[in-house]
Amino acid sequence: MLSKVEAPDSILVDCLQYSRPSRDRFLEWRAGKVDAVHVTLAVWEGARETLSVIGEWHDLFAENADLIAPARTAQEVREIAASGRTAVIFGFQNTTPFEDDIRMVRVFYELGVRIVQLTYNTQNSIATGCLEDRDAGLSQHVGRQFVREMNEVGMLIDLSHCSEQTCLDTIEHSRDPVALTHANPLEFVGSDVELNRRAKSTTVLRELAARGGVVGLSPYVRMLRHGIETTESEFVDMVAWTAEQVGVEHVAFGTDFYTGYGIDAVKWWRMGRWGRESPIPIDESAPVVEWPTWFESPRSFPTLIEAMQEAGFTEADLQLILGGNWLRLFEHVFAPSR
Amino acid sequence: MLSKVEAPDSILVDCLQYSRPSRDRFLEWRAGKVDAVHVTLAVWEGARETLSVIGEWHDLFAENADLIAPARTAQEVREIAASGRTAVIFGFQNTTPFEDDIRMVRVFYELGVRIVQLTYNTQNSIATGCLEDRDAGLSQHVGRQFVREMNEVGMLIDLSHCSEQTCLDTIEHSRDPVALTHANPLEFVGSDVELNRRAKSTTVLRELAARGGVVGLSPYVRMLRHGIETTESEFVDMVAWTAEQVGVEHVAFGTDFYTGYGIDAVKWWRMGRWGRESPIPIDESAPVVEWPTWFESPRSFPTLIEAMQEAGFTEADLQLILGGNWLRLFEHVFAPSR
Repeated sequence: MLSKVEAPDSILVDCLQYSRPSRDRFLEWRAGKVDAVHVTLAVWEGARETLSVIGEWHDLFAENADLIAPARTAQEVREIAASGRTAVIFGFQNTTPFEDDIRMVRVFYELGVRIVQLTYNTQNSIATGCLEDRDAGLSQHVGRQFVREMNEVGMLIDLSHCSEQTCLDTIEHSRDPVALTHANPLEFVGSDVELNRRAKSTTVLRELAARGGVVGLSPYVRMLRHGIETTESEFVDMVAWTAEQVGVEHVAFGTDFYTGYGIDAVKWWRMGRWGRESPIPIDESAPVVEWPTWFESPRSFPTLIEAMQEAGFTEADLQLILGGNWLRLFEHVFAPSR
Repeated sequence: MLSKVEAPDSILVDCLQYSRPSRDRFLEWRAGKVDAVHVTLAVWEGARETLSVIGEWHDLFAENADLIAPARTAQEVREIAASGRTAVIFGFQNTTPFEDDIRMVRVFYELGVRIVQLTYNTQNSIATGCLEDRDAGLSQHVGRQFVREMNEVGMLIDLSHCSEQTCLDTIEHSRDPVALTHANPLEFVGSDVELNRRAKSTTVLRELAARGGVVGLSPYVRMLRHGIETTESEFVDMVAWTAEQVGVEHVAFGTDFYTGYGIDAVKWWRMGRWGRESPIPIDESAPVVEWPTWFESPRSFPTLIEAMQEAGFTEADLQLILGGNWLRLFEHVFAPSR
């Protein structure tokens, strides 16, 4: 851990994981030398349910104070990393906890929430998700007002599960740069991948980068070019390819790593309480999730980083990709202006 | 009232009013010989708030049992009318009370809610409202599943504040006929009216009618051809014109009458809690609402009906327009199939 104290800029940020939280996961973070993780508190939950999730995390912070601590600023991320622990950044993968109340943006900011995705796959009052055939983008009234509010409060907007038009509209309307915390480039992975609607067009990636945003690339096999057969080398190629397209200052990691759930959780993610049928068929006999051999868990980060070094990434580039880009974005966005 | 007992089919239904409920309003209904009113319980309210509104209505039913009673079926409407009182039919002008929980359709049906509008002006998870420039219509996943659920539970779908595409999609996807409880024909009123985006195209009106739906016409001045200057005769012409376009079996009344509110209610209707700015500018110095001299309140129904008789509407046509069409639709839709 001493090297961390000496070189606090070399920080590893995984800008999305959604595992069932437990000490085992936090030990995994430490084993993988992960300095900060953006965790998901809500995907369909409303305000009240999300308050309970925040309460559960505070219990976890108390019980695992040797491993983790909550971070509300880039500076807190650095301080927690320097103490040899992993910083936890609160986020939502949907705006459902706001319950269409614009003042809840500030309320959840006060509770430490720093990153919020506008919608999760489907259309809502604010935006359009990536699974909709008709793409109305960011909604003209509710959507634009929430984007402005999030900008003023200091909340980073995440577009990972949003539609193409929502991405383009939000990049245009947002005063601050925005994030794709966990998404891969469609042009690189190809439209044959299972989650091709989750992957992002080169147009979106370039617009995002042009406004100072960052994309977090993911080893989630359903969004990799050759699925579970994808090699580490191909993943490293994807990082290099994306950096070539949009600049290394705009590429980072958001693994989407998750573990610890059963089929009920999958059903919840797919259709919350709104559906009797999932928009994506659920195979109840299949394992909930599989990870590639070269990224079985966040413990694999050191070997992945070695592979990147061997592939020719410079130390300066690695510092940006591993955490520098996220920290720069956090520094800029998390400071409220209201 | 005796004539009512003798001729229960000649029933007057106003399929939308949104006044602040009070005994004065119920006396007004009796003075106007209004047999049934579809009232609005929610426009942006969530589940819990709506439960309180239902509780308040039950207090009103107890305190005004001489004037009003709740109706859950077409038959109950007839029975309450025959008893010389006004039947109250519960409805929502938005799906917010469901809070994206599909099982809440049945729960609110159990509580007596029979008519629900998919959205109120703006985009939500289920549908697109009439004020959106981009019109994604009924949403592919959440929207279609809620339409199916409402069909199966026995809830009448209302499209009055929805977009053109939402109307067309819902008419297509709904197993049962649907309603425009309060909307005027765009072709007749002209696109210069203040609420031109609330008025409905002839295409929508014809498709609605072709599937057995009903449109309730309104004397709300912001949706009349000459605003506050519109004459009773012009209103009667609009009824005749609409009946010519879509058939007299599909035309009825939904006055949108409301009174008893201040500017805070107007702000609530325009932007709930989601906005810091109203999509329609609010003139705080103007009166909340004005009604034409020939329809100052539901007390004016008898003179309006006389004007229709003088204009040549037959008794058979009048029976359909005044209530027969709504009762037929209620009879068909309110019976659950699940």
